Amino acid sequence: MTKIAFIGAGSLGFTHELVRDILTFPLLEDATLSLMDIDPERLAWAKKGVEKLIHEGKRPAKVEATLDRAEALKDADVVLTTILTGHTDTWRYDIEIPKKYGVDINVGDTRGPSGIFRFLRTINPMMDIVRDMEKYCPQAVLLNYTNPMAMLCAALQRQTFITVTGLCHSVQGTAMMLAEWIGAPFEEIDYVCAGINHQAWYLEYKWNGVDAYPLIDKAIKTRPEIYNEEIVRNEMYLALGKYVTESSGHNSEYNWWFRKRPDLIAKYCTDGSGWNPGEYAYILKEYQHNEATWKDQVKEELDRQLGPEDLERGLEYAAYIINALKGGDMFMFNGNVPNTSLITNLPEGACVEVPVVVDKAGFHAIHVGDLPPECALLTQLSSGIEEMAINASIAGDPVMVYRAICHDPLTASVLSLAEIRKMTNELFAQNQQYLPQFKVHSV
Amino acid sequence: MTKIAFIGAGSLGFTHELVRDILTFPLLEDATLSLMDIDPERLAWAKKGVEKLIHEGKRPAKVEATLDRAEALKDADVVLTTILTGHTDTWRYDIEIPKKYGVDINVGDTRGPSGIFRFLRTINPMMDIVRDMEKYCPQAVLLNYTNPMAMLCAALQRQTFITVTGLCHSVQGTAMMLAEWIGAPFEEIDYVCAGINHQAWYLEYKWNGVDAYPLIDKAIKTRPEIYNEEIVRNEMYLALGKYVTESSGHNSEYNWWFRKRPDLIAKYCTDGSGWNPGEYAYILKEYQHNEATWKDQVKEELDRQLGPEDLERGLEYAAYIINALKGGDMFMFNGNVPNTSLITNLPEGACVEVPVVVDKAGFHAIHVGDLPPECALLTQLSSGIEEMAINASIAGDPVMVYRAICHDPLTASVLSLAEIRKMTNELFAQNQQYLPQFKVHSV
Amino acid sequence: MTKIAFIGAGSLGFTHELVRDILTFPLLEDATLSLMDIDPERLAWAKKGVEKLIHEGKRPAKVEATLDRAEALKDADVVLTTILTGHTDTWRYDIEIPKKYGVDINVGDTRGPSGIFRFLRTINPMMDIVRDMEKYCPQAVLLNYTNPMAMLCAALQRQTFITVTGLCHSVQGTAMMLAEWIGAPFEEIDYVCAGINHQAWYLEYKWNGVDAYPLIDKAIKTRPEIYNEEIVRNEMYLALGKYVTESSGHNSEYNWWFRKRPDLIAKYCTDGSGWNPGEYAYILKEYQHNEATWKDQVKEELDRQLGPEDLERGLEYAAYIINALKGGDMFMFNGNVPNTSLITNLPEGACVEVPVVVDKAGFHAIHVGDLPPECALLTQLSSGIEEMAINASIAGDPVMVYRAICHDPLTASVLSLAEIRKMTNELFAQNQQYLPQFKVHSV
Amino acid sequence: MTKIAFIGAGSLGFTHELVRDILTFPLLEDATLSLMDIDPERLAWAKKGVEKLIHEGKRPAKVEATLDRAEALKDADVVLTTILTGHTDTWRYDIEIPKKYGVDINVGDTRGPSGIFRFLRTINPMMDIVRDMEKYCPQAVLLNYTNPMAMLCAALQRQTFITVTGLCHSVQGTAMMLAEWIGAPFEEIDYVCAGINHQAWYLEYKWNGVDAYPLIDKAIKTRPEIYNEEIVRNEMYLALGKYVTESSGHNSEYNWWFRKRPDLIAKYCTDGSGWNPGEYAYILKEYQHNEATWKDQVKEELDRQLGPEDLERGLEYAAYIINALKGGDMFMFNGNVPNTSLITNLPEGACVEVPVVVDKAGFHAIHVGDLPPECALLTQLSSGIEEMAINASIAGDPVMVYRAICHDPLTASVLSLAEIRKMTNELFAQNQQYLPQFKVHSV
Repeated sequence: MTKIAFIGAGSLGFTHELVRDILTFPLLEDATLSLMDIDPERLAWAKKGVEKLIHEGKRPAKVEATLDRAEALKDADVVLTTILTGHTDTWRYDIEIPKKYGVDINVGDTRGPSGIFRFLRTINPMMDIVRDMEKYCPQAVLLNYTNPMAMLCAALQRQTFITVTGLCHSVQGTAMMLAEWIGAPFEEIDYVCAGINHQAWYLEYKWNGVDAYPLIDKAIKTRPEIYNEEIVRNEMYLALGKYVTESSGHNSEYNWWFRKRPDLIAKYCTDGSGWNPGEYAYILKEYQHNEATWKDQVKEELDRQLGPEDLERGLEYAAYIINALKGGDMFMFNGNVPNTSLITNLPEGACVEVPVVVDKAGFHAIHVGDLPPECALLTQLSSGIEEMAINASIAGDPVMVYRAICHDPLTASVLSLAEIRKMTNELFAQNQQYLPQFKVHSV
Repeated sequence: MTKIAFIGAGSLGFTHELVRDILTFPLLEDATLSLMDIDPERLAWAKKGVEKLIHEGKRPAKVEATLDRAEALKDADVVLTTILTGHTDTWRYDIEIPKKYGVDINVGDTRGPSGIFRFLRTINPMMDIVRDMEKYCPQAVLLNYTNPMAMLCAALQRQTFITVTGLCHSVQGTAMMLAEWIGAPFEEIDYVCAGINHQAWYLEYKWNGVDAYPLIDKAIKTRPEIYNEEIVRNEMYLALGKYVTESSGHNSEYNWWFRKRPDLIAKYCTDGSGWNPGEYAYILKEYQHNEATWKDQVKEELDRQLGPEDLERGLEYAAYIINALKGGDMFMFNGNVPNTSLITNLPEGACVEVPVVVDKAGFHAIHVGDLPPECALLTQLSSGIEEMAINASIAGDPVMVYRAICHDPLTASVLSLAEIRKMTNELFAQNQQYLPQFKVHSV
Repeated sequence: MTKIAFIGAGSLGFTHELVRDILTFPLLEDATLSLMDIDPERLAWAKKGVEKLIHEGKRPAKVEATLDRAEALKDADVVLTTILTGHTDTWRYDIEIPKKYGVDINVGDTRGPSGIFRFLRTINPMMDIVRDMEKYCPQAVLLNYTNPMAMLCAALQRQTFITVTGLCHSVQGTAMMLAEWIGAPFEEIDYVCAGINHQAWYLEYKWNGVDAYPLIDKAIKTRPEIYNEEIVRNEMYLALGKYVTESSGHNSEYNWWFRKRPDLIAKYCTDGSGWNPGEYAYILKEYQHNEATWKDQVKEELDRQLGPEDLERGLEYAAYIINALKGGDMFMFNGNVPNTSLITNLPEGACVEVPVVVDKAGFHAIHVGDLPPECALLTQLSSGIEEMAINASIAGDPVMVYRAICHDPLTASVLSLAEIRKMTNELFAQNQQYLPQFKVHSV
Repeated sequence: MTKIAFIGAGSLGFTHELVRDILTFPLLEDATLSLMDIDPERLAWAKKGVEKLIHEGKRPAKVEATLDRAEALKDADVVLTTILTGHTDTWRYDIEIPKKYGVDINVGDTRGPSGIFRFLRTINPMMDIVRDMEKYCPQAVLLNYTNPMAMLCAALQRQTFITVTGLCHSVQGTAMMLAEWIGAPFEEIDYVCAGINHQAWYLEYKWNGVDAYPLIDKAIKTRPEIYNEEIVRNEMYLALGKYVTESSGHNSEYNWWFRKRPDLIAKYCTDGSGWNPGEYAYILKEYQHNEATWKDQVKEELDRQLGPEDLERGLEYAAYIINALKGGDMFMFNGNVPNTSLITNLPEGACVEVPVVVDKAGFHAIHVGDLPPECALLTQLSSGIEEMAINASIAGDPVMVYRAICHDPLTASVLSLAEIRKMTNELFAQNQQYLPQFKVHSV
């Protein structure tokens, strides 16, 4: 029997989706789902939601809810982390302080000054979880959904013996979008996608074994509605020749080309028809809106009658992975794992997003080789900056944080070194209480 | 519809087994099986055998037989090679010449002076096959069963764009033997096995996720019948702490420890109860015996009434791989592939035997990392010698052949450098007609 | 007896200085100095200058002048290249076209759009020289002074068997400036400087064996005249903690931080007291001025009476190197050589600037290891862009040129991908006649 | 003023030679020579010898002698180690125990079972010296002459921040012998020699810039007196094509080819005319003889009148290195340093013997690249075995010692795995008191 611990179970959408998927696997239908959160109200809602899924699906699974992390972790086989450190009042400054200096952020959960400070805060509770795992479930694997994915996973992977794999749906999401664009049934598509989280590249994309890039190229160049759906990523494709994962909005803040001038934001990051073309502070605004309305939504959702389609398996990787670990079908996905000569021109030991096969013997990462130079240069820089931020956190060295941010493409396109120093200091001052790993909070 | 070409289809046992397996997969049951051999008599027998399998299994598959390799290869999806260069009168000297000098060989198909000369002969028809594949079926993959596996595959892999993967059943064979020794159902066993063909090491061997080496250790040390089953490999395990693939006989000729003195051969290589404890020229004698009797055996076999158990799927990898390539279940096996930082302390580009996942997108090799030193030293030496032999063949340099043989463990344990030179020259003289890649046949 | 060929001998200042130094070494005083240029007028002046040096110094050296490159190269021991492809009317557009798009260049001889197009033009005559060397003096070494140093040397190093080493005085120049700042006699200073040409970092800088960075730090922070002498490089030091080679003006165009906004150019690149604080098109204007006046200067210089101080050895590396190659004192300098695991976090095979020892057995490059991350990120990006430009030239692929420029820090800080495409196309159109390696001159 | 500590100053020959050389350098003539030994009698003799050299040479140098290591090390600039752990009664068993099993050793100071046990004993006092250096002279460099060179240096280099470089004269010794063979003045010879101590290969050997291997080849093949001078090494050259360092006797025990059969010892290791053709226990017998006679020799030597030739500088590296470190002429030598991608096909971090340049900034190791395969295979194996022995000592793991010895070429050519186990256990039992790093002394 399998015990699955959900740390941060109050991330209600995630918990719902993952439990729904888990219960579809016969091998897992009698699992113990142990929900943990630091927020008792959200935890209670999470439990109710899971109970409803179990009841409607008529599964023998058990659910537990606890505020005690050790209890949730005790003898778990798999641990899922979907935590968020603090409310919007904690992390709004990740976005708002850079904006004061002219660094215009869309999401801020991955890299750049916003992502780095989110990492510096979040690594502390994540390390606590992992240290508890070493005590209470040393054999368990950690499947992490918390962002910033690459920095958190790498920082964990090099400080614990626990197997940590990061999961993100952006790889299959983009792959499905491209299939739709060229009219291909998704099951006829193969691809090799590799890089780092939110900056992975489709090195191959084939329809029935034949290179489908010419079709993608044609779709982008000849069909305005497709160009408009992902303006930033399509522009990147047109320049670099390979398609990249994650939304246009996210990508617009990971490089130099789109957000450094207001006219470019207006041109490239505003009117796209996809879910996140690149508006300033898009996700922050969403969260601020949700904070007012989430309880009503949750109640409504709990009252809703579930149909069979609500119990169907979705596309998130976690349940497939747990099923494979317990002896079910082998499963291949794009995971965030330590770079052991997998991508040979990214730093050894960095957290890379590559194809991974999982079976009952564990995770088996697939060798990719060199990224082509047109994808490698930006990815190497991003990964190198992340390495600096990780090492800065481990060493408690604020200067290394500053130097990391100095190289962030968007920041570097907008500010001088002196201005970056000022911005970094303001970010340190705002976050001081969440950063015990630093003795000094200025540079 | 899938076309599968069998080059060397006159290897009747192999052809029978592979076809039987292929026909068990619904995706492949209408395949075209194109048999080719240079020996018309054997080819005719092979065709009859396949026809019988198709008929008994009531499959829509088609069989063709041809002496024309181009015809067999034309538009094939998969090519299987099970060729043997020459009759026993060709290769008996690989065994008999070294014996004259005191180098006592048991099989001689893998490495050492016998294996190197077998390679130098066999690479020529193998290159011809691959050059034809480039012309007639450039998209096809080559699954090679011909020995010496590592040298042939590496030599091909670096000289063609065709995907070449070498297959050998010794990994799962040994894994099953160990499971039996410890009383574990094989489906509860996981292992990581890596190295080079016939010298791969079970770096992990687990029963239900728990290290089973202590059980293996106990079995070998306390149960004489188990010690006796694989004396050479058990001695290697007792010294080195990891179990190795392939029979004791094979292994006895790959290192310094067992065949250099008659008393050691008597003690370690003679009375084992496994299929090949290590007798001098064991396989050569088998073949010589078969040459007299094979036709009767074939006839008898063709006349035999097949039962349902004769149509059941076996454990050879090839059919599972073809099924996965055509869109069936993903499949993990130990394949012989180019070392792209997969085993980080073996030569880059050498042919290594590591876990490989195959699906419709192709082959995905799994990263292993460093072999532990107790396994690495011998394997590095073997692989380094193989690299020299491969490069010697490509460069047509007989001196490099000599230098490779100088380092062969068994040879080096027995002979002086001058004696090795003499033996090498005699082997060159005997094989001269089969080695057009060399202008000079002495050193 | 040593023959030294000067290709581009019409670079009168260089030729004068190098010959003066050469004649100070007893081992070289009877050398044959073979001057070659494509401009007969400049060549004649060069010859007169050398004759004067020989005469005044009373050396047995011989001088030859020829328009025929083959004649100059025939049996040379050492070849010096100081060529410039075209007059200012050829290369002014490297500076002026980017300026139209907002990319404000100070020198434009190293990297960025200007440096890349200078490379794409200049590699053609440089390859011609090297091909002639293969014919006429295959044992000779090439000491290159022509820019862009790193791209030219790397492109040559991977296409010829001739030993090519690039020389630049910026390493010792900066080292002497720093010594002066801290009041240290230069002979008491040791340093390890490594990176790529014009972007190498003083990883160690010691005065009598003790780290002198604290003294440098104090000088920059407390003495305004020192801060003002190298504003850009001092700002880089204050952020990154290591000092970089070459002038502030050069450096201001190699990164994101100084030239993307007019106010930053005004603040950081205008009023420095060093030789090149960073004015727009500084070197172009110098050359345009010189084109009007050089003949008068040359005449004046030739008429001038030489004193003993005019015959003293200077600090350029070339003469010391030639002396060491001919059996004189071993000499250590910073040379531009292929990266053979010398700087372990820059691309293997790129041209790196590292300590090199030369003696009569040739060049021996010193292992450096990893650049620290604060120096590595920018240098990796620069080197990666250079690799793309080199490969673009070899492959004749204009798209790869565009992609290289897309990643240039200054360009990327100012322009969108579409704007960069337009600028690249204009540069291609302007240079079309000098770029026979490309079949297509637009992207 | 320079302080040089001699640890093991009772190695009278070494101390005499090194002091004589040191005093020839003006920069060092006022050095303080601090002699330390654990044997007061030998120490007293050493001091007298040094005093005589100082007096005869009329130098201002000072000599001190002490039994207190801390006192000798205090504020030293350079530390020289020439220690020997124990008398012949300690280490005779390194030779005599293997002989009982049939492993016939000539010297036993480098590798193989004898060398490994010598290492396991000697690393303990060497670590003590280095720990004291960390306390009493943390800036000093350690120049080690104690054997086994590669294992001791590597074990120290990875466990201390002190710079440790190993010195051995076998590289220049062999180079001079080869020069003599071909009639070349040594100053006209250049070479590149690289590998590991006592197994380094002349990758290039040039006379006035031209490959001199054809001349060496001819000398060996046509002149019997030259063949006879170094039979073992000449046989190795004839097979492998590159010349190796150290005497024929030493080399005869580092591989499989010469000492495994009595007839081969008789043929190759007995009648050579060089200083050590390969007699059983040659050095042990020398030491045993010296133990009876050394005092008389020392007295005689001290009474001898020194002539000017007795004060001339010799060829040992140490004095040249110290002079360079103190600001004298840069010096290139073959040193034993950590492998930082210097020899790219030997283990990273192993102790390799490569060209090193020393100047006042310290040691600068020269990149070599791959050893050619004909040299690499044996050297990789030797280095891999050494790595195992080093790690065994650090981990206190006797099993890893056994596994290391299992792979020793000579041992593996002669014994079975079970016999090697027995021999290893006997060596452990004999050495138990000197091996505190092991808790268990059997396998």
